[in-house]
Amino acid sequence: MIQITSPFWKRYQDLVKKEMLPYQWKVLNDAIQIRIEKERDDDEIPNEKSHAIENFRIAAGESSGEHYGWVFQDSDVYKWLEAAAYALRRDPDEELKKTADSVVDLIAKAQEPDGYIGTYFTIMEPDRKFKRLSESHELYCAGHLMEACVAYYEAVKSRKALQIAEKLAGCIDGHFGPEEGKIHGADGHEEVEIGLMRLYHLTGEEKYEKLAQYFLSIRGTDPDFLKKQNEMDGKPPLIKGVKSAPPAYFQMHLPVSKQDTAEGHAVRVVYLFTALADLAASTGDRELSDACRRLWRNITDKRMYITGGIGSTVRGEAFTLDYDLPNDTMYCETCASVGLIFLARQMLRIEPDGEYADVMERALYNTALAGMALDGKHFFYVNPLEAVPEKSRKDPGKSHVKCVRPQWLGCACCPPNLARLLMSLEDYIYTVKDSVILANLFIRSELTLEAEGGRIEIRQETEYPKEGEVRFHINNQSEHPVTLGIRVPGWTEGQGVSLSSQGDEVLDSRREKGYWYVQAGKGETDVTLKLKMEPKRWHANPLVSSDINKTALSMGPFVYCLEEADNGKDLHCLVLPKDAELRYEWKEELLCGVGTIQADGLRLMPSDPHGGLYCGKETGKPVPQKLSFIPYYAWANRGENEMRVWIHET
Amino acid sequence: MIQITSPFWKRYQDLVKKEMLPYQWKVLNDAIQIRIEKERDDDEIPNEKSHAIENFRIAAGESSGEHYGWVFQDSDVYKWLEAAAYALRRDPDEELKKTADSVVDLIAKAQEPDGYIGTYFTIMEPDRKFKRLSESHELYCAGHLMEACVAYYEAVKSRKALQIAEKLAGCIDGHFGPEEGKIHGADGHEEVEIGLMRLYHLTGEEKYEKLAQYFLSIRGTDPDFLKKQNEMDGKPPLIKGVKSAPPAYFQMHLPVSKQDTAEGHAVRVVYLFTALADLAASTGDRELSDACRRLWRNITDKRMYITGGIGSTVRGEAFTLDYDLPNDTMYCETCASVGLIFLARQMLRIEPDGEYADVMERALYNTALAGMALDGKHFFYVNPLEAVPEKSRKDPGKSHVKCVRPQWLGCACCPPNLARLLMSLEDYIYTVKDSVILANLFIRSELTLEAEGGRIEIRQETEYPKEGEVRFHINNQSEHPVTLGIRVPGWTEGQGVSLSSQGDEVLDSRREKGYWYVQAGKGETDVTLKLKMEPKRWHANPLVSSDINKTALSMGPFVYCLEEADNGKDLHCLVLPKDAELRYEWKEELLCGVGTIQADGLRLMPSDPHGGLYCGKETGKPVPQKLSFIPYYAWANRGENEMRVWIHET
Repeated sequence: MIQITSPFWKRYQDLVKKEMLPYQWKVLNDAIQIRIEKERDDDEIPNEKSHAIENFRIAAGESSGEHYGWVFQDSDVYKWLEAAAYALRRDPDEELKKTADSVVDLIAKAQEPDGYIGTYFTIMEPDRKFKRLSESHELYCAGHLMEACVAYYEAVKSRKALQIAEKLAGCIDGHFGPEEGKIHGADGHEEVEIGLMRLYHLTGEEKYEKLAQYFLSIRGTDPDFLKKQNEMDGKPPLIKGVKSAPPAYFQMHLPVSKQDTAEGHAVRVVYLFTALADLAASTGDRELSDACRRLWRNITDKRMYITGGIGSTVRGEAFTLDYDLPNDTMYCETCASVGLIFLARQMLRIEPDGEYADVMERALYNTALAGMALDGKHFFYVNPLEAVPEKSRKDPGKSHVKCVRPQWLGCACCPPNLARLLMSLEDYIYTVKDSVILANLFIRSELTLEAEGGRIEIRQETEYPKEGEVRFHINNQSEHPVTLGIRVPGWTEGQGVSLSSQGDEVLDSRREKGYWYVQAGKGETDVTLKLKMEPKRWHANPLVSSDINKTALSMGPFVYCLEEADNGKDLHCLVLPKDAELRYEWKEELLCGVGTIQADGLRLMPSDPHGGLYCGKETGKPVPQKLSFIPYYAWANRGENEMRVWIHET
Repeated sequence: MIQITSPFWKRYQDLVKKEMLPYQWKVLNDAIQIRIEKERDDDEIPNEKSHAIENFRIAAGESSGEHYGWVFQDSDVYKWLEAAAYALRRDPDEELKKTADSVVDLIAKAQEPDGYIGTYFTIMEPDRKFKRLSESHELYCAGHLMEACVAYYEAVKSRKALQIAEKLAGCIDGHFGPEEGKIHGADGHEEVEIGLMRLYHLTGEEKYEKLAQYFLSIRGTDPDFLKKQNEMDGKPPLIKGVKSAPPAYFQMHLPVSKQDTAEGHAVRVVYLFTALADLAASTGDRELSDACRRLWRNITDKRMYITGGIGSTVRGEAFTLDYDLPNDTMYCETCASVGLIFLARQMLRIEPDGEYADVMERALYNTALAGMALDGKHFFYVNPLEAVPEKSRKDPGKSHVKCVRPQWLGCACCPPNLARLLMSLEDYIYTVKDSVILANLFIRSELTLEAEGGRIEIRQETEYPKEGEVRFHINNQSEHPVTLGIRVPGWTEGQGVSLSSQGDEVLDSRREKGYWYVQAGKGETDVTLKLKMEPKRWHANPLVSSDINKTALSMGPFVYCLEEADNGKDLHCLVLPKDAELRYEWKEELLCGVGTIQADGLRLMPSDPHGGLYCGKETGKPVPQKLSFIPYYAWANRGENEMRVWIHET
């Protein structure tokens, strides 16, 4: 049991509870007039309504008509249910529970006798079930449903929800596996593996772990599996364009344990490895954990933005190659960073290494939070590090880079994904393994663990991310001493960090791989971590061509950006001199309260305003300009305007 | 009559004559085994063979089968014929003439009784003629055929060729025009306007000028003309994807004279304005010439690469917005720069302004020449300013950026376009208007003009572009004095330029808008222009975000680049210090002879080779490295390797 009391995060969780969930519920029911935007300039994206609940009603026989929307539209409902489950775990709420129960009832009614659920196929093409896994997202949706059912069972002990999930898992087990007559392949979009592992953790039934393991081991053994299935199917595609995607798009180019680089669709990659890391942590399988570690290294050492965004290209929403991190054409899907947080959490179950928590924090405080507006009712799919509204409008290659969060998206995977992450943030603060408790995130909260002989309570008191002092009050009433591993964030490198206990500096404590370990025997122990919080400059590896001779700023876990609202247009003309002082300034009234960074910078003005493009002389005249940076997550909350993370440095 | 004797250009013209024309002839006849590459990752591009001549044979009834290739495949044949015509104008060649005559015969046979020519429609869909102008390219092909026929008539006095063109023009006149019952609109791809103007210049028949003018004036008066035509047609598109293009893609968003910015498909824009400028120069219409000037200003002040490339995005092969000039995702199609040269030539007919010749020279010596390999048998469609082979392979957003010139292209518009430009370079050296002769390009050559009372001969003696001295020997045997306008290139700004006559510096000569005017009375006059040739640094307007804090080098008309072959990988890590001396060095054995620029530069090495992506300290350690630049046009002639024009400067 853990309760978040942090004002920063309580605001977000309340927002999800009070705004996002009711809002999203209305959207799923087409009960609100909103403008649904396409993620990119693509004819195929359905963009008039959600219709997600109505699809279920039709499949359940309660309504009539055709399926509308993406073939994976069901998953929007599942992710909403999962988020609602976490909200109910946090605070009982009769009305929300009634709505959630009605969703569970509706899903149960739409479930076919053999356990199959998938409104598109039930309504439109029952004969094509599991026959076109490259596009069908059937197991992807199934995985989300399992996650939702597990969460809902855990929150309100809904047997009905658990039965839906188990029946569905049984149906899938009947169709997939090494046995003859079954399908020897996996879904084009990973997720069912995560759902099955959660079902396994809840029920202890090994068949679910075994099925997850089957999907993870069969993947990529036949790179042409999906292509062959498409040929067998022979019918028109369910989603255009996917057909010609190479096996790597689906992470099917190699067996999973041989995949040393992150290839293809970014969300799929992190979902795949989240499940693999879960399996590796659960089984202790060394080969699997090594594979996870290799992939992790590739992503975080070579293919991740400073904001924790991943996916360097819109084409296939995909990874590209090492050090290829363009700031203005990237994808950095909200879901991909949410998935990276999932992966980091599982990596921490494999081994205690603060780097996993560093990335978790980076993705959480930056790209994930940027995925929604401060009002909780507008959402980004794509999270650029550089945005110029006119370029988004006039350069078709940047049509996916929105400069204002839309009210809803034609492909609405991100908003409910964010809702479920934020509502379950409690699960990310600590990693508990045997007698070791890792404190990964600094969030004011109260943890209670039942242990042999009595409770262990850990109270975190901190104003983090606003301030850098974190006080841990441990009350250990159990039989055994516990070890608390307190994370020393990677971003503190070169800055002051100290650990004190009962007022005295702790000198003999073990500090290893990003954690400071403190023993807490029976009774009360107080430990205080002090992180020096100050604005900091970052530089990218020079192999990243987009960031060369540029700097990005941070303060604590937040990456900063320049916005046109504070600094005028043409942000690329702004320069931060190497020796400019960075002044931190809290602004309570700005953007729900943010810490800004102020600096004396320069603006390169065209030397000759009527001049042409190219000149044999210097073309930019530096003129002093005050620069004002805000945290990246808060951008685009003041209307359409330019934004930039990496700025020129001289 | 003008004869080029420049060794630099003679090599190119001989290459076109001896290599390109025979090679392209074989390709058009599918008589050579080559690998045809797609310009980009697009299923729709036909890429197995050309079939262009076979299409004509089928249309002519000499063969049977279906049309293959693009709907505009015919234009490849026309451009080949046009280039062959210029080759024959330069040097008689019985065998080439025989081949060219056979092409003319074949085209005549494929021409329908009413004058219509278009093998796709003749063979496949005769009922759809002129019914889907957004995609059909029927008038585009017609324009190319007219150009070819005019050139062929001018070269060998082929009446048959001229008859084909006139009959075709008559057919078009019968279908298009303001009269009731005719089509009130223009082709989706401009070109017929150019062809009609040439036919008018040759024959003096005003009906051709009138028809060109009709197409230029009807364009954009109804932005939905093509959309409505598509709807009327109702059949599947001839080219996928074009249907959803906005009117601006076709320059139909506004009446042409109201188009102040270059919008849409870059080749179409410059073809359109080439015809408009031709009409403006021919009629003296002020409104039209003002429109041309406005568009010219927009392109050259805000939307043109330093290499004379145009078209900032692959999506629609199009212009985007002012100052948006990305170096690695641009299009810069060879044809677009060829078209820009056409436009510059017509602008010079409107008014003597050296700027037009500057751009002509920039596009010619850089992007146009880069469009072909030094062997004359490999061609670029896209001409990047920054290329990294691995990015082209792994980032689908850069799949159009080839790092080695393919042997042929699925859409083969560029190679024959280049052939016809290079073979008619004679026509670009001078602009003759009344008694003023503008010397636009410095190319060793001999001009002979027939004038009242006798000949005017101008002999240019120069090693340009290798050296900067240009000697003009004028022998005026006519009745009247002539004025020779000698261009003072824009790139000489800040460098020494002098003009001398018979050894004495010319002091009283008028210098205006980029030309130095010299009077030449009866008899012989010698004038020598001396341009100081030295390596030069260029900077872009700071509003161009891609080029900020970077420099590009030039020497004479050549823009330079760094290539991996000389400088190693990761060219973005190379830095040219502001104070580094630039040393010019001629290398006879390199790349058919090039002048290189050498400098003491730096390479930013990752400070920690095992480090991750982001660091709170400096990440790049500058290490001295010799930099060696080559002229841009010569890149990618030493296998697949990186290339970069704009490099970091400190």
